[in-house]
Order: sequence, then structure tokens, then C-alpha cells
Amino acid sequence: MSDRKRITPTHRYRNNDKLIGVGNVFWNASEEHGVAGIVGDLHDGVFHMADGHEFVNFTVCSYLDLDTHPKVIDGAVDALRRFGVLDHCIPRTRVQTPVLLELEESLGELFGATVISAISTAAASTGLLPLIASGHLGNGTRPLMVFDKNAHVSMANAKPSCADETEVVTCRHHDLDFLEDQCRTYERVCYVVDGSDSLGGYAPVEELAALQDRYNLLVFYDDSHSLSAYGERGLGYVRSHTPALDDRTITVATLSKGFGAGGTAILLNGFPHATRRLIERFAGPLGYSQKMNAAAVGAALASAEIHRTAELTELQGRLRANIALFDSLLATGQAGSSYPIRVVPVGDDVVIDAAQRVFRAGFYTSPVFFPIVARGSAGLRVMLRAGQTEEQITRLCAVLVEAGAQPAGAQPAGAVHA
Amino acid sequence: MSDRKRITPTHRYRNNDKLIGVGNVFWNASEEHGVAGIVGDLHDGVFHMADGHEFVNFTVCSYLDLDTHPKVIDGAVDALRRFGVLDHCIPRTRVQTPVLLELEESLGELFGATVISAISTAAASTGLLPLIASGHLGNGTRPLMVFDKNAHVSMANAKPSCADETEVVTCRHHDLDFLEDQCRTYERVCYVVDGSDSLGGYAPVEELAALQDRYNLLVFYDDSHSLSAYGERGLGYVRSHTPALDDRTITVATLSKGFGAGGTAILLNGFPHATRRLIERFAGPLGYSQKMNAAAVGAALASAEIHRTAELTELQGRLRANIALFDSLLATGQAGSSYPIRVVPVGDDVVIDAAQRVFRAGFYTSPVFFPIVARGSAGLRVMLRAGQTEEQITRLCAVLVEAGAQPAGAQPAGAVHA
Repeated sequence: MSDRKRITPTHRYRNNDKLIGVGNVFWNASEEHGVAGIVGDLHDGVFHMADGHEFVNFTVCSYLDLDTHPKVIDGAVDALRRFGVLDHCIPRTRVQTPVLLELEESLGELFGATVISAISTAAASTGLLPLIASGHLGNGTRPLMVFDKNAHVSMANAKPSCADETEVVTCRHHDLDFLEDQCRTYERVCYVVDGSDSLGGYAPVEELAALQDRYNLLVFYDDSHSLSAYGERGLGYVRSHTPALDDRTITVATLSKGFGAGGTAILLNGFPHATRRLIERFAGPLGYSQKMNAAAVGAALASAEIHRTAELTELQGRLRANIALFDSLLATGQAGSSYPIRVVPVGDDVVIDAAQRVFRAGFYTSPVFFPIVARGSAGLRVMLRAGQTEEQITRLCAVLVEAGAQPAGAQPAGAVHA
Repeated sequence: MSDRKRITPTHRYRNNDKLIGVGNVFWNASEEHGVAGIVGDLHDGVFHMADGHEFVNFTVCSYLDLDTHPKVIDGAVDALRRFGVLDHCIPRTRVQTPVLLELEESLGELFGATVISAISTAAASTGLLPLIASGHLGNGTRPLMVFDKNAHVSMANAKPSCADETEVVTCRHHDLDFLEDQCRTYERVCYVVDGSDSLGGYAPVEELAALQDRYNLLVFYDDSHSLSAYGERGLGYVRSHTPALDDRTITVATLSKGFGAGGTAILLNGFPHATRRLIERFAGPLGYSQKMNAAAVGAALASAEIHRTAELTELQGRLRANIALFDSLLATGQAGSSYPIRVVPVGDDVVIDAAQRVFRAGFYTSPVFFPIVARGSAGLRVMLRAGQTEEQITRLCAVLVEAGAQPAGAQPAGAVHA
């Protein structure tokens, strides 16, 4: 009915036409070539597919393999038996069992922070960012919200909500000069950024702390990829290095990657007591939707116990050794970093073939190519873990070289940016 | 530094100043009087507080008490043991174990739908609604998004994101005339509404189906409060009654209320096969954040089995009997409805006192008052469940009458709207 009104979108902060138009090409190509849409049973670290093919997953974020640690699974079971209910379905602001409080107390002690739990980092970020935008989670001033161009989509998706509470801009990756300019212009600024990037690399936390000191800059970090894997007691990169552990820094970090459990921790220092209630009541889904269930809490409590022992240090050491072994065999832009993610450059035209070849040899690595990364930057994303064996890593690297990757010692390719 | 730029918000779709300004008054008053912020251990259906006080929770949404059903807890434990991991941390679009597929197949058979799972209804709604807004989850036309004024906040919070993909308006509660006007004006319209309201009542699904037939209206329902509690095999109100079970109807329903498990089901019929991939890849947090964990899946599989037996019918019968018993004792605007929620009017000036009195007598009911409901509409929200005993309901109603509620037979007060 062509006489009826057709709508033209604004597309200021998001654009599904573009996202789906380019994204679906990537996904369809990956799936058609058998390097996405894979289903298999996982036993003892090996995937078994219905057609008999077996492979080791080199793109899973459980960096210390705590997700399959028997104590973590036992912890989940124990909590189910102890509390007798997965989730007592009423907002915790009304009535709660001690299940979340017990976890938050344990994590608070472990990480030296006030901890508030959430069912996922997406729930935490989309709940917290609009509260920051309106000045309620801060000093009352509405900050200019500066989103790093590479900020994970779980943060970037909050832009439209934030834009109804304040002004929102997107800056180039780690653009400290731009940030300082905005700090000089606006009463207050909040910078939204990954503490640890999903394609490798850390935020410049010390340089940011200097801006925090000078301009009262607020920084919102998602440090999901480094919690547990990095730092004493698994504090993560941001909280190991920032000198601004106070009410100018808000960190969220998932408990489902390195921590091996599920849910998310919001980590705060220096906020008044009323902040906890404010977040529980008004941080979007935290106030009305599902909470971490008892199994995820039990797993996280067990993982927290492991974080308190020498076992954590040992697992971190094995992860570091595996990263070093990988770097001794293959050249990547991330070589030498403590970060457990590597993108192995293999050329835009052969990346899908390379992923297939590696997969047939028994290893899953994620192909990333345009539009996920810039043209000329295609590669296979590899995540190192504590539990991978020397034999697996050595064999993977040999296959990668056969598939076109550069062995270590060759001129390393430039760092890959999303 | 007053020379720096201060920001004026647009507040087109949300306003934290207003939300928190008025909401915090409600929460603080409730908590100061001990009828919010309650912590207790739950054993055999009774909460035990640290000070020795005991109470039965009459505001929990597990309408059939399946959340504490031994088979449901055993199902959660079994899945943890069987899969050996709570959540294998990689997008399911790349590599997945069969855990979610098994659940989706079971629920698909149970409810006669294509089912896609999500970690929470908030994740599902905030993921799906922008896809609908951009026309991708539909016929390609960007619809005018009409949000019902009472649409739960988990849907309403998606307005700013939808507004960047299409036009968004808010209409009065169940305003069919307004909807028809918009259907005449716009190429396509999507109406976003609760199938079952959190303060009692159902959507006019048959009248909406007439508009769906005439104008190709798309309707997005959240039917979380009636799944399991209502209809054959616990189909819920919407899917029991709408004649439009096709690609003009999208329903989400939590698995954490009546179903007693956790997570959420997206229920679809008549969409092409590619829709599943589109949702898994691009429906916001479904593409990048945590999934239902194995414990929630195991609980849901066990609950689905119960839904296939006579036990479900028996539990629904007990719920209906408890609702009837309550209605035989107390006058409310909802009396006579199959809906398990009642708001007991007690007068704006005494509602907190009444809630306290009822709590001291051993029952938690939620006080709702301005700004949660209109002035003059204050009351205590009561949720009936299959597992409440006749003695508990009779005693609660006696206490409510002592606290100022009207016994049945008196002129019932008008229905309460949020």
C-alpha cells in the first residue's frame, strides 16, 4: 500500500541495515565453509561432532580452564542443593535469600572492592551507562559520554539510551588528546572503553588516571578479558594498574570467561553506601530482570576460593608459558604481550581456506575478516588457555604455518585493530 | 568550573531525574518501614530472618511452585554433571555444545513453536525490538513502533534504540482505536505490549488479531506472567487465544516465573528458517553475551517434562482453587479473573502501615503506591501460587481485613492500573 507513510531512520548511533548487510556476509561465508555454526559434544577438552570429527577449541575465553574445573562444577551443584532454588523470582530490592550477598561479600574481599552482581555484562553495562549519563552514578553533573570506537558492542549498544540523558560522542581508539580536549570543554566527561580488548591489547590506564586526576574524568572499563587471567588474585589488568581506584573508575568484568562461572561483577571503590541501592533499584535490568542464578553463584564462590590459593598462580603461570610457547613459534602483532589473544595474519583471500584447513587438522580458530576487521587485516583469532598442552600448541602452530601464517623470527605483521 | 559546558538532556524516551526522583521516595519509604530490603533463608516455603521472624512470601512469581520442585532442581544438577560446564564461553553462532539446542527442541515441541532461548527476557526484548524496528524481523518495512504505556520497563527501555531505526510512539493502555489510526497511516505498525500484565489483566489478543488480519499489524507480546500458569500444557494466555500464530506475532516469555527454571523463550511461528540465524547473530545480547547456563537449561528441561504430565493440570487446578478461595474472602478489582495477581486496595495513607502489619503477621505482600500506581490506587500486591495452603490464604485474608482491606461481598474497588 504505497500511499501509506514510509519511515526514514535517523541512524545516529546504530544502523541495522549496515550491521546486518555486512555482518551477514561474514557469517554466511564462515558457516558455508564449516567454520561457524559448529555443534559438538565436549568431553575432556575435546569436541566430538556427529560426523566423527574431533577438535580442540582455540577460541574459548576460559583462559584458566576454570569453567570445567571439578571444584567449580561441584560448587554449582552444592549451591543448588543448599539454596534449593535457582532464582527466587522477586526483585532483590524487596526480598532476597543471602545467595547474591554471599557472593558479593566473597568477591569484595577477593578484589578489594564493593561488588554488585548482575546476570551478564551486557545487563550491567546497559544498566549502568544511562545512570552515569544522567549524573546519578557520579557527582550529579551530566557528563559528555565519550565511547571509544572499539568499545565492545555491549557498551556501544547503550549509546541511544545515554543520548536521551546527555550528549554522546564516539572517539578514535584510545584518543587521549581528544579526551583531554573534551575535558577542557565540558563540565564533566565519561570515557567508555574496554580495559582488555577482545582482539588483544589493554587500555592506557595510567595515562587515563592522569586525566582523571586533572579533570575528574570518569572512566567506565569493561575488563572481562583479563579478570582471573591477569594480576595478583586475578584482579585483572585495570585494577592491577590504575592509580584511580576510587569513584572516578567503574569497572565491570564477566565471571564467565577467566573466572569460569557465569554472571558479572560490578567493581566499585569510594562510592557512598547509597550507590549500591541506587544501582540495585535503577540500573536497568538489575532492578527488574533475572539475577545470577544459584548455580552460577555457587560456581563463582568455588572459583573465588581457587583464586585465594597457589593454584591460581600456577594456572596463570601455565597460561603465560603457553602464550610464550605460541609466540616462540608464530609471528603476530601481539607477540610478547601478556594478553592471551592472538590474531594470526593469513591474508584476506585465504583466511576462510586457512580456517578450514586448521579445523580439519583438529583445531577451531575464528576467522576474522572484513568487515569485522579492516581490509588487509584478515586473520585467525586464537585464544591461549592454561589447559592447552604443549603438543596441541606446537601442532596448531605447525598447521598455521602450513596454512600461510608466518613463523616467529619472520618480520611480524602490524597489530590488528577491529 | 562554571565556565565549562553544561548539558541539557532531551528526555524523549526516558528520564532518570524523574524515575529516580519519584522512585527513590517509594523505595526508601518501603525500606525504612521494613517492607523492602528484606533478607532471609528460604526453607520449605518459609523465610527465616536473622532476627527470628518468619514469613511466607506472597509476592513471588513462581505460580506453580515449580522453582522448588525436586525434579527441577535435580534436572539442573543432572545437566551440570552431563555437560560438565555451566557455559562454554564462545558465541553459539561459532561453536556450541547441544545444551541450548536440546532445550529449544523440547520447548518447541511442548509449545508448538520455533523456540530460541535467551538468558533473560530483558536480553530478548532489548535484542529483538531494534531488529523489528529496522524491518529485519518482519517484511522488510520499518514499522512505526507503538509501545503500550504500561509495557513493562524491559520493553520500554528499548525505545531509544528503536527510535534510531524507525519512529516510536507511546499509546494509552490497550488503545485499539489509536492503533487502527496508525495502521491506516503507516506502511506497517508494530504494537509492543504485555500479554499478561504485572498488576493483573490480559492483552486483548482477539481484537488485536482482527487488526493483524486487516492491516498486517505486528504484535510483540511479553507473556511472562501467564506461561505455565495458564492454558493447555501451560501455553500461556496469548498463545492459547490469539488466532494469529504466525509471522505477525512475536512472543517472549520468561522461564523463571511459572516455569520455575531461568532464562527466556522466544516463541515464533511462520518465520522462514533464516530468522533463527538472524536472531542468534544480530538480536543484541543474544549475539555476544551470556547464554542460559546449563543449570537453567537442565531445570527447564525437567520443568518441560512436568508440563507434559497430569501434574501440570493438577498444579494449575490448585492455583485456580487458591485464586477462588482468595476471591471468596477479599474484594479486589481483579476478583473473578484467572489471573494470579491481586492488588488489595487499602488507602494511600495506610498502605505502608498495612504492609507492615501483614508482614508482622507472617506474610510478605508488596506495597504499591504513588508513583508506582496513580494516587488513590494504593494497595498490597498479592500473588497466588499453587503451593500456598488454604490455611495460609485464609489467615492472610483475615489479617488483610484487619489492616483495612474490604472483605468479599463489599463493593469491590476499581481495577488498579500502573
